[in-house]
Amino acid sequence: MKKKMEVQEPSCHRLQESLLSSSSGYSNYRGVLNWCVVMLVLSNARLFLENLLKYGILVDPIQVVALFVKDPYNMPAVCLVIGVWSNLKNTVVLLLQGCFSEHFGLLVHSINLSVILCFPVAVVLMVKSVTPVGGAVALGVYTILFLKLYSYKDVNKWCREMCYAKARSLSRSISCPSVSWSEGRGVGSQVTYPGNLTCRDLYYFVFAPTLCYELNFPRSPKIRKSFLLRRLCEMVSSWMVPIIQSSMKPLEDMDLSRMVELRTHSAVPNHLLWLIFFYTFFHSAMNFVAELLQFGDREFYRDWWNSETVPYFWQNWNIPVHKWCLRHFYKPMLKRGVSKWAGQSAVFLASAFFHEYLVSVPLKMLRPWAFLGMMAQLPLAWFVACFLRGNYGNAAVWISLIIGQPFAVLMYVHDYYVLQHREESAGVGPD
Amino acid sequence: MKKKMEVQEPSCHRLQESLLSSSSGYSNYRGVLNWCVVMLVLSNARLFLENLLKYGILVDPIQVVALFVKDPYNMPAVCLVIGVWSNLKNTVVLLLQGCFSEHFGLLVHSINLSVILCFPVAVVLMVKSVTPVGGAVALGVYTILFLKLYSYKDVNKWCREMCYAKARSLSRSISCPSVSWSEGRGVGSQVTYPGNLTCRDLYYFVFAPTLCYELNFPRSPKIRKSFLLRRLCEMVSSWMVPIIQSSMKPLEDMDLSRMVELRTHSAVPNHLLWLIFFYTFFHSAMNFVAELLQFGDREFYRDWWNSETVPYFWQNWNIPVHKWCLRHFYKPMLKRGVSKWAGQSAVFLASAFFHEYLVSVPLKMLRPWAFLGMMAQLPLAWFVACFLRGNYGNAAVWISLIIGQPFAVLMYVHDYYVLQHREESAGVGPD
Repeated sequence: MKKKMEVQEPSCHRLQESLLSSSSGYSNYRGVLNWCVVMLVLSNARLFLENLLKYGILVDPIQVVALFVKDPYNMPAVCLVIGVWSNLKNTVVLLLQGCFSEHFGLLVHSINLSVILCFPVAVVLMVKSVTPVGGAVALGVYTILFLKLYSYKDVNKWCREMCYAKARSLSRSISCPSVSWSEGRGVGSQVTYPGNLTCRDLYYFVFAPTLCYELNFPRSPKIRKSFLLRRLCEMVSSWMVPIIQSSMKPLEDMDLSRMVELRTHSAVPNHLLWLIFFYTFFHSAMNFVAELLQFGDREFYRDWWNSETVPYFWQNWNIPVHKWCLRHFYKPMLKRGVSKWAGQSAVFLASAFFHEYLVSVPLKMLRPWAFLGMMAQLPLAWFVACFLRGNYGNAAVWISLIIGQPFAVLMYVHDYYVLQHREESAGVGPD
Repeated sequence: MKKKMEVQEPSCHRLQESLLSSSSGYSNYRGVLNWCVVMLVLSNARLFLENLLKYGILVDPIQVVALFVKDPYNMPAVCLVIGVWSNLKNTVVLLLQGCFSEHFGLLVHSINLSVILCFPVAVVLMVKSVTPVGGAVALGVYTILFLKLYSYKDVNKWCREMCYAKARSLSRSISCPSVSWSEGRGVGSQVTYPGNLTCRDLYYFVFAPTLCYELNFPRSPKIRKSFLLRRLCEMVSSWMVPIIQSSMKPLEDMDLSRMVELRTHSAVPNHLLWLIFFYTFFHSAMNFVAELLQFGDREFYRDWWNSETVPYFWQNWNIPVHKWCLRHFYKPMLKRGVSKWAGQSAVFLASAFFHEYLVSVPLKMLRPWAFLGMMAQLPLAWFVACFLRGNYGNAAVWISLIIGQPFAVLMYVHDYYVLQHREESAGVGPD
């Protein structure tokens, strides 16, 4: 029998599926991602060359820098962002005094947090000269600060509770607060509860690319300069290209918010713009900041591009917010005996509220489109989960992103222009 | 020490890289591929709708079928393809007689193979009415047949050699040919040498999506109807969409080759067209045929999209040809004592020859562009291998595909139109 097999020539085929068949289980498409980037760069390069041949080199690097430096003083939104500092100082003073009772401290903190949410809204709505883009950025910064300080308060409360519990269980008189602050912060060692209550620690957390406070963040061993440079180039090019592209002329009399508006009206479709925003903000910018601060946890997003269900997408595209919701909103509710279903609905509603907050207030018009957009996810999620599997589910999620998102944006843009036109024709516009 | 750790809240961050960073080692981007497909379909759908609103529904399915059925009789190229059968019959007769000596058989086979290569060239060059597309398809079919029969001859020769060797080593008188043919072809068992010399076996090999002959191909257990249907839909849509897209009118007076020409001149860039061709031919069509024939080995391409060097791309985008070159050209040369370097050059030159053969002859003009395009791969490969790694290498391969390929095609198109125009102005054109 063995000899008989030898007569046959060595086989050069074997039973296997094509890689692109979904049944092959193959999924390494890094090259396809590179293809997308190359296509994006090449199509931009063509436009860039066309403009260069048409107008010549009109971009003066000094002018560009001057534009960024000169502009802030004209914008109330930027002043609002700087105003964040005063609020931070409030918090620091609150903490460092450390002589409040638990209940009084909670009250003061709650007042502080509500001020953070309400103060920018009042400013944006009352000051006429705040542009939508400036307003959105300012509100975004205040929202991030709100989430961060909420987490800071929560974690420190947990630490105090653990300290008391530990003191009780040890039944000794060494209570945590008696450990001196300098003792808590050893060189290279872990920081323990009261040792973390320093200005330095709070400022690090405020700048770190995360919303969840922790006493000892994982730190990367060193700052890689080439990594930093690459992320910086990505950020700069993602801003410069559309400006150069759309037209070379209006650079002199252009401010930051007009540049953003120009970007949104450029030929790049809304969906591509969102993808570029995602990459620039969640990959380039956050990694850049993290590298500078030697912040170790770079998980700012997971593989949402493979999501086969709608919830998977929402849980994985924005990890800092998702982590915050889970840790400071959903889990505490579950601990208090709220049912899973009610907890999920509450998270969903809070998310819808913040989407509305970040869109309606800067545009100075209350419209239900962002909220409805969020609500439309529910039947979509149900449909995808029931009827679609694998690649078809993934395609459905992509289609909802490609079609659904621009639709909501379009509704706002439409309403905004109608409103502006009405104001102008009523004589409220340019004097 | 243990108690001290308990004071800290459970950590919610850990040291990790972002997924999109190349250092993370993550590579599952199946979703990005789906995104590309969705974008392609959506952008086509928009054009389709625009045309539908402009012209209404002009496509009559019966008309389309009639177009395909009616057309062949007008085309000499199709007659050429049908002519393949006569040649196949030659081979079968040659084999089944089985009474030639080894040397005489080789001679007859060589003559037959050279006829396969030269006959269509003569027809295409002499018959005026062969269009470039028809000529290229006919030459392609003849080339495939050439490679298949070469492999068939080689494998059977190896089998005979092994039979003799076995007979000698066993020093018994049971020589292989004495095993009756019917005995060799057991139900469900492996076929051994002389048992494979049947018409049925040869025809199966000719239609099977591979160029390498084997006595016992791996077979898939059953024909999956849904798989077959999906591949068929992909093939049909990849042909229908550009026709509907480009314009709805000229369907009545259009033949197959004009449809292909229309396709190449449509708005879809050359590179996208190549990608669609790759998918339609190497995935949809080959898998369709393989599923019909229950042919088990579906490896028609490997992961060339991830290739970081130029040779990796050439070795992985077209597996049937790569396998054939390795098995019937490169390895036999090595066995005869040719150096590795000389062998690789020979494969490269043969490949360049066939590229030229498939392009120059149908266009009826001998131009060095395809050959030069192949030659330009050498310095490119050297440059990529020396200076670029990882994603940068991959991007370089993509750029060479996106820019290099259309450039070569453009040179031919340019020369073709110049030639046609000269002929027309000289009065050779329309009478």
